Amino acid sequence: MTAPDPVNQLDAILRPKSVAVIGASTSPEKLGYQILKNIIDSGFQGPVYPVNPKADTILDLPCYAGVKAIDPPPDLAVIIIPARFVPQALEECGEHGVKGAVIISGGFSEAGPEGEALQQQVVEVAQRYGVRVVGPNCQGVNNPHHPLCASWPLLTYRGKIAVISQSGTVGAAMMDWLTEEKLGCASFVSMGNRADVDETDLIAYFNRDPDTGVIAAYIEGIKRPEAFLRVVEELHKPLVVLKSGRTPKGKVAAESHTKALAGADAIYDALFARHNICRAYTIEEFYDFAKAFAYLKPPAGNRILFITTSGGAGILATDQAELEGLDVATLSPELAETLTP
Amino acid sequence: MTAPDPVNQLDAILRPKSVAVIGASTSPEKLGYQILKNIIDSGFQGPVYPVNPKADTILDLPCYAGVKAIDPPPDLAVIIIPARFVPQALEECGEHGVKGAVIISGGFSEAGPEGEALQQQVVEVAQRYGVRVVGPNCQGVNNPHHPLCASWPLLTYRGKIAVISQSGTVGAAMMDWLTEEKLGCASFVSMGNRADVDETDLIAYFNRDPDTGVIAAYIEGIKRPEAFLRVVEELHKPLVVLKSGRTPKGKVAAESHTKALAGADAIYDALFARHNICRAYTIEEFYDFAKAFAYLKPPAGNRILFITTSGGAGILATDQAELEGLDVATLSPELAETLTP
Repeated sequence: MTAPDPVNQLDAILRPKSVAVIGASTSPEKLGYQILKNIIDSGFQGPVYPVNPKADTILDLPCYAGVKAIDPPPDLAVIIIPARFVPQALEECGEHGVKGAVIISGGFSEAGPEGEALQQQVVEVAQRYGVRVVGPNCQGVNNPHHPLCASWPLLTYRGKIAVISQSGTVGAAMMDWLTEEKLGCASFVSMGNRADVDETDLIAYFNRDPDTGVIAAYIEGIKRPEAFLRVVEELHKPLVVLKSGRTPKGKVAAESHTKALAGADAIYDALFARHNICRAYTIEEFYDFAKAFAYLKPPAGNRILFITTSGGAGILATDQAELEGLDVATLSPELAETLTP
Repeated sequence: MTAPDPVNQLDAILRPKSVAVIGASTSPEKLGYQILKNIIDSGFQGPVYPVNPKADTILDLPCYAGVKAIDPPPDLAVIIIPARFVPQALEECGEHGVKGAVIISGGFSEAGPEGEALQQQVVEVAQRYGVRVVGPNCQGVNNPHHPLCASWPLLTYRGKIAVISQSGTVGAAMMDWLTEEKLGCASFVSMGNRADVDETDLIAYFNRDPDTGVIAAYIEGIKRPEAFLRVVEELHKPLVVLKSGRTPKGKVAAESHTKALAGADAIYDALFARHNICRAYTIEEFYDFAKAFAYLKPPAGNRILFITTSGGAGILATDQAELEGLDVATLSPELAETLTP
């Protein structure tokens, strides 16, 4: 028997056959209700098991007292309970044979030494049982192609861009824009504190995923640089990266956010340039670059022609095009003559 | 008798007591109708004289066969007739004692050697009679404080920003945004080919104008560098400049637009820095900088604090603030403690 392929393991999270929601709630204001509802509303085809010892049914689904009461065990557990109960719940998942977990709950390494200790317990339990874990402190996962939206906002359009984000808000902004333009996504994974699954795992996964055309990753720091390098060397899809923590104080802010080392920005620049990784500097660029790779035909060259009724607009556009390295073409005198009004 | 003050002369254009529209039209699709209508709709308080030998009345105003038939002569003539008739019309204005003209018509230096010769005639006539001329090939002038909108779009809100533009489209974009945000403008002057009145004249004028708080100038090149320097040395209001033609091809495009020399961009950078002129690099910055100078209280220092529910957004904001030279403040440990949820 060989060790499980870490890429295939993520199928339990992004293509599960069955899902338990540990901490499902009867209260529509709570995430434990909203996530369960989004899983149902996204059209998930397998069984969904709410886990809540105090309810009989939620959203017309029968409730279970604990994950061990579910038979057969679900592929994926989505966990939304207070941080101090998470290690025990994950332990039960491991014992019962659950293969993947998405821990939405916060209160871990981002919350101080006590949370740090809880996160360490999560890592130990995950490793002991071989359960792959997304989060904690994350906004969940969405794969509209499977389909499964264990996240928010609900996005059901099937698109080409897989979004990986260390920030739930940045990911949600991308989901909002992709929804507004009816483009949808290939998948969305909010990584949160990256106790286990990180950007390297996910880039490797989406590089093989037939539904993904472009990978867009918001990161504050690369968790495992050597493994990352091995993965990007084999990359055959466009990868757009928005790497924050560029400035000294931004770096301090990044390191306090999800407790990741941000590293010197120049090293990232060099690394990205070497591996043809497209670096975005703003969230707007992050969206635009990913969209362009996914939906536009690559131009044959760098020449561009402006057609405008405004001289001023034409000059401003020419300036910007030149600054971006484009070659502003001029019409041949013969063609210009035929176009004269 | 002393020579007329060139700044006071511009009152004939921006604060006229009476206006003739030479080339007023009965056809609502034509500029000669639209400009006349905007002058009326902007609430101009003095007499308005449509000039059109083929009509009796336009928009209920009696028409005149020529400017010389108007008694007393109007302060300002707005001219919208084919280029080849413009020198003669301007000659009549001069002979009759009209003090200012705005030539909307195109077909001058921007249109080839023939137009170049016509523009030269305009300059000669203007100088011979001391008529100050805005344009030709321009989008007119608007002073909502007077009020007089001899331009388009119609903007009647009285604001603080005087917009000077070598491009009608850039100026119109500013007018649109100032209208959308209900800010209005102090004045708008579309300079066109700058046969006579140029940015130096207008900056001097608006520097003295009591209704102007901030001057925003879109230019492709400074027409009279020495006069410009003398004026900006005496400037006591914020001046925001969007200078296009920054790149080699942008420069070529600028020089072909209104036939102005664009000059080396580094010289402009140095000049602007020396005279505290705020340089905008995009039309969005042009608008935002002018608005900030006009409507925001200057901050006491460069420290900034972000309040956000998103770690990712906080890091991206911190990065950008640091890159802009702002000092991202941190809370004292005591204050942070009291804010902990």
